[in-house]
Amino acid sequence: MVYLTRREHFNGAHRLYNPAWTAEKNFEVFGKCANPNWHGHNFDLYVTVKGEPNADTGFVVNAHELSRIIRREVTDKLDHKNFNLDVPELQGVQPSIENLVKLIWRWLVPHLHGCQLHCIRLVETENIYVEYYGEV
Amino acid sequence: MVYLTRREHFNGAHRLYNPAWTAEKNFEVFGKCANPNWHGHNFDLYVTVKGEPNADTGFVVNAHELSRIIRREVTDKLDHKNFNLDVPELQGVQPSIENLVKLIWRWLVPHLHGCQLHCIRLVETENIYVEYYGEV
Amino acid sequence: MVYLTRREHFNGAHRLYNPAWTAEKNFEVFGKCANPNWHGHNFDLYVTVKGEPNADTGFVVNAHELSRIIRREVTDKLDHKNFNLDVPELQGVQPSIENLVKLIWRWLVPHLHGCQLHCIRLVETENIYVEYYGEV
Amino acid sequence: MVYLTRREHFNGAHRLYNPAWTAEKNFEVFGKCANPNWHGHNFDLYVTVKGEPNADTGFVVNAHELSRIIRREVTDKLDHKNFNLDVPELQGVQPSIENLVKLIWRWLVPHLHGCQLHCIRLVETENIYVEYYGEV
Amino acid sequence: MVYLTRREHFNGAHRLYNPAWTAEKNFEVFGKCANPNWHGHNFDLYVTVKGEPNADTGFVVNAHELSRIIRREVTDKLDHKNFNLDVPELQGVQPSIENLVKLIWRWLVPHLHGCQLHCIRLVETENIYVEYYGEV
Amino acid sequence: MVYLTRREHFNGAHRLYNPAWTAEKNFEVFGKCANPNWHGHNFDLYVTVKGEPNADTGFVVNAHELSRIIRREVTDKLDHKNFNLDVPELQGVQPSIENLVKLIWRWLVPHLHGCQLHCIRLVETENIYVEYYGEV
Repeated sequence: MVYLTRREHFNGAHRLYNPAWTAEKNFEVFGKCANPNWHGHNFDLYVTVKGEPNADTGFVVNAHELSRIIRREVTDKLDHKNFNLDVPELQGVQPSIENLVKLIWRWLVPHLHGCQLHCIRLVETENIYVEYYGEV
Repeated sequence: MVYLTRREHFNGAHRLYNPAWTAEKNFEVFGKCANPNWHGHNFDLYVTVKGEPNADTGFVVNAHELSRIIRREVTDKLDHKNFNLDVPELQGVQPSIENLVKLIWRWLVPHLHGCQLHCIRLVETENIYVEYYGEV
Repeated sequence: MVYLTRREHFNGAHRLYNPAWTAEKNFEVFGKCANPNWHGHNFDLYVTVKGEPNADTGFVVNAHELSRIIRREVTDKLDHKNFNLDVPELQGVQPSIENLVKLIWRWLVPHLHGCQLHCIRLVETENIYVEYYGEV
Repeated sequence: MVYLTRREHFNGAHRLYNPAWTAEKNFEVFGKCANPNWHGHNFDLYVTVKGEPNADTGFVVNAHELSRIIRREVTDKLDHKNFNLDVPELQGVQPSIENLVKLIWRWLVPHLHGCQLHCIRLVETENIYVEYYGEV
Repeated sequence: MVYLTRREHFNGAHRLYNPAWTAEKNFEVFGKCANPNWHGHNFDLYVTVKGEPNADTGFVVNAHELSRIIRREVTDKLDHKNFNLDVPELQGVQPSIENLVKLIWRWLVPHLHGCQLHCIRLVETENIYVEYYGEV
Repeated sequence: MVYLTRREHFNGAHRLYNPAWTAEKNFEVFGKCANPNWHGHNFDLYVTVKGEPNADTGFVVNAHELSRIIRREVTDKLDHKNFNLDVPELQGVQPSIENLVKLIWRWLVPHLHGCQLHCIRLVETENIYVEYYGEV
């Protein structure tokens, strides 16, 4: 069993705020992340799959094929987008990186064949990242 | 003459588009950067000053003092902001990183004493950055 | 269950040596790390916690709150300090990064609420780091 | 139980192709990696071991000793080599990074004493890496 | 005048040796880089151009356009190639990074319009890089 | 004319304080850097030389030879040392990175033949570095 990780990128804008709260409470909890005119990040996405290396290719998965799947199923839906406004699956959901990794997991799982999704890691800044292993 | 560089960060949202052009022309020139709902980046800002090390301190400039000036004069005005909407000095100006470094130079110059501003470097992604040396 | 990691920094000085050994034996085991006048490092500290994202905030933990706790309970006690001389909890203990991560774990555990401490990673140089998961 | 990771480097050349296939099939599966005149990479190798810190040294393992073992048993056999031509253990084996980490694991295990091999991570580019935990 | 830098990548194999010398002399001068079966690297290429930001776009150069030019004129000719065998312009030339940056400069200059080529930086490992400013 | 840069490392301890000042004034100017029991850093040293590539080797300078000179003339004198106590040339001099780069320049210049020293860059943390070009 070998684990292979592929990195992809996307940039996006978002705003953290809870519409059930006052502006004051939102700023108290989310700080500058609640600014009404949005802010954004460069996101680094690391997708880890696991499996047995294939005898003919030596690959757990063809990394170029994996890259194409991640772009089609994930980064094309998020890149240069506003997560609050442009992503139907995030309507009514706080677009925190915690909720993003869970969504990315759901998007990817049906499209991986011959290997198993192990971890989604999403890096928001050099100081903060999250990981999701499909645990519920 | 020694050159000292201090790094600071900010995150922001922007959109590249020219209101004098059609939507088609904007997408042709700016691609996804023209998306109407904004996108954003983590920006790394490197400020380089030059001068003679002070005999008492060994410093060209006190780096903590320099950091406070950069935060007050620059990153407080840009961090978690929308460069198109929230920055008065960018009204009517394309918020490209080229125009940002020129603005940051103008913001900083009056506040540096005992050393000389040498270069503003602004890193937008790991693949693109700009530098400005005050050349006109 | 989502894992969130927050990075903090500290710089410090230390010396690795065993007072029960001769100077020769100390240099044989610890090399230049036994130099009597100390040496130091930039340390990168990564704290990983795990939990369910909160429905109101989308957060496993508020990363700014987590940062404040790490600074108050850990990095304020280590930053710009001499680990052999200035840290009461390290008296009589070798200030190796292995022993530091175990101490940092003990310092943090009582102060985390609503999420669980998962891992302490401490990076001493680009070539060496240690991790501790609370295993005894 | 503390985990210690040591990084080492090597550069090498390789070619991914399956001699049982046509040139067309090889290019279809391996793309430019099948180029007959080889290509190469800078490889970052991370070796993670686990154990109890020693009471006298504070070390899970002496990192300089670990470095010497990795160089003698692994990187001296791979550095500035052609993995297809120069590595006897890879004859008849696809020199993918998946197969390399399994080989590196087998090379290292007999030489680690007083601690346990936990993980081999091999980074081929900033976008792709593999990990092996000895799982069969 | 603003300077814009764009990064691109390529991987390749090469061998440093002088056919006019004995094998001994080659190993004495080039060390493991003279290994007959080649070795390789991940190369990071940074291209810096300078110019006045355009009033309509805010750009010194459209970075996506610049990327396309670099790929077509440079990295397509070097990526996954053997520099000694596959690059006609390097026949009879030592494929050192010093000679590579001079070649890359010559390849790019005729294709840049509306801005000026300022610097080619080529990073071979995290410890070695070269820069060329067109000085003869 | 091509510029070649070689990176080397050293770790060290230092303390910034001015013996002519009170403890209060020292803490006001130097902050935690004035702590009496020292602190330390991982230093990255980048040495840039310039020259014409040699026709036989393709090298401005043999990078392994350059590395040996830097280690012998510079990093062996600073690595795992206390800059205030262990470096004779720094007696009576503030061991700031500004003064360190000037000292490193003086140490290296007499030992470079066939190329010219162009720049010494010394990186103290990911947020602060200095450069010296020999300007007086």
